Amino acid sequence: MDSNPIKSEHELIAMMASVLPGAGNDVLVGIGDDAAVLRPAESGDDYLLATSDMLVEEVHFSRQWSTPVQIGRKAAACNLSDIAAMGGRARWMFVSLALPDTVSTRWTLAVCEGIRKECLPYKVVVAGGDTCRADRAVISITVIGSVSPENLCLRSQARPGDLLAVSGPLGGSAAGLAMLRAGLSPGPYLAARHLTPGCRLDIASEIAPFANAMIDISDGLASETGHICRRSNVGAVIEAGAVPVDRQVTEAARSLNADPLEWALAGGEDFELLFTVDPRKFRLLSAKVQGLFRIGRIVSEAGIWLIRPDGRRVPLEGGFDHFAGQG
Amino acid sequence: MDSNPIKSEHELIAMMASVLPGAGNDVLVGIGDDAAVLRPAESGDDYLLATSDMLVEEVHFSRQWSTPVQIGRKAAACNLSDIAAMGGRARWMFVSLALPDTVSTRWTLAVCEGIRKECLPYKVVVAGGDTCRADRAVISITVIGSVSPENLCLRSQARPGDLLAVSGPLGGSAAGLAMLRAGLSPGPYLAARHLTPGCRLDIASEIAPFANAMIDISDGLASETGHICRRSNVGAVIEAGAVPVDRQVTEAARSLNADPLEWALAGGEDFELLFTVDPRKFRLLSAKVQGLFRIGRIVSEAGIWLIRPDGRRVPLEGGFDHFAGQG
Repeated sequence: MDSNPIKSEHELIAMMASVLPGAGNDVLVGIGDDAAVLRPAESGDDYLLATSDMLVEEVHFSRQWSTPVQIGRKAAACNLSDIAAMGGRARWMFVSLALPDTVSTRWTLAVCEGIRKECLPYKVVVAGGDTCRADRAVISITVIGSVSPENLCLRSQARPGDLLAVSGPLGGSAAGLAMLRAGLSPGPYLAARHLTPGCRLDIASEIAPFANAMIDISDGLASETGHICRRSNVGAVIEAGAVPVDRQVTEAARSLNADPLEWALAGGEDFELLFTVDPRKFRLLSAKVQGLFRIGRIVSEAGIWLIRPDGRRVPLEGGFDHFAGQG
Repeated sequence: MDSNPIKSEHELIAMMASVLPGAGNDVLVGIGDDAAVLRPAESGDDYLLATSDMLVEEVHFSRQWSTPVQIGRKAAACNLSDIAAMGGRARWMFVSLALPDTVSTRWTLAVCEGIRKECLPYKVVVAGGDTCRADRAVISITVIGSVSPENLCLRSQARPGDLLAVSGPLGGSAAGLAMLRAGLSPGPYLAARHLTPGCRLDIASEIAPFANAMIDISDGLASETGHICRRSNVGAVIEAGAVPVDRQVTEAARSLNADPLEWALAGGEDFELLFTVDPRKFRLLSAKVQGLFRIGRIVSEAGIWLIRPDGRRVPLEGGFDHFAGQG
């Protein structure tokens, strides 16, 4: 496929290490020993956060649709997004790559370049990982972060009376994917929403002191609201008309005869933050952080309801499951 | 293959969580939120350790030769071994599984049972992970541990004049694999050395205060000695006659017309500890910890030499590389 096949694991790791961001006062030993050695304390009271996500070729990404830089960016972003969802700061990343014979050194280093691009704005250091052969490319990433106890946002902390809010417009990733699948050009905005969605570490630590429960939208608004409600023993009412959907999403839906609200509710991979917040605090927060949308409220009765634009109240179900319907 | 295919990711994760060890005062939130929330401090001065390893079906393990419990045990052990090699204590594990259609819920839970078996003696808690579909099974594990600064053993800390020592007999894993590959029964001891090698967290923290450099033997004695020498800018002389090899390894070599020393030097996956230590300290350590073997010494000149039983001094090269010779 390419003129520079991978010849040696040691050589590859050395080249990867030269691309991946690897400095940092809190990394005593990074890539190259049996384990990374990290200095944990920012403040002695901070908790550690740790999250792992695995991306498999043809399940989570396609070498046909995505450049290796895009694949690396998305793999990094979906992990960083989990740290954002806790209200924390991401600090160290561990990248394990399983690589088929058909990928080159150049492709692999471009994946690392994509990971670097997502890590740099947040000063996240890649401190270790693993490489090996496989039939299909697999990218397994673990991120370690930290959070002060007062900023920690758990799924279980929603309270009846809270507003339900999101950090940005939804459905863009699903719209981009649908256009690509239909063989149409998604345009630069929707392509970016699907291929390099980014994460919201830029504002997570500003939202966290105000929010009660928080989660990132990886599986769709309906599914993530369900996670918060189940964990918090509450219900939720979402106003369809208040769910933010971009003009490009509406236009893509028209050209594909699809429902843009369906993409926002069930599409997933937008990696915006969904959080619950006391109404008075939301006013203060909105004055501080631009681009937040109030989309509904938390109620004490179980169940998730959608109020449609015509005023009808319908139960909301769905979301994405990797194993459902494939048996 | 089995009567209980995997139907739902949520259901699977709930079942996995019930098998995997999940308690612990230092885990505030384990499986079930966006990220695990961990209490870092044992002592405020301790460093964090973190390591990742990825195991791919038919590269690192075979569903034909290994039971799922054995596969889980080995996957956990090779990660725990990296923490042992730093002189640390393993604390939290993150397990990501990519699973093909042909594996059942029962197989997956048996892998978890194997992971549990390796974690329990060392009180390691599985605090998160990920599951998804793939063509081949992939097990990607990250372990976070801690170490006090005075116990930290880096590859770069070997000094000329140090003894080179190992924590147990070598070549057993390679001998077991060779017997299996030849279609012969390896017997229970060699089968265990290859299929469930364990790790040396049991004695790592006792060796660490005495040792200078330390590494675990995953790629063979020759290769690991090379890592220490390169990082420490030293050389090493290994006495072939002093390399500990079990009777069962010698017997397997005889039946396969192979060289047991070759298995010890280049076979790998024994997961014993290789360390360098001041000769006077080695005497003190040996009085405290049984079953340690002095196998050579660190010298100031670069290069690794093997002194054969006949007294001949030969340069030592080799080791296992996942990419070499597969281009």
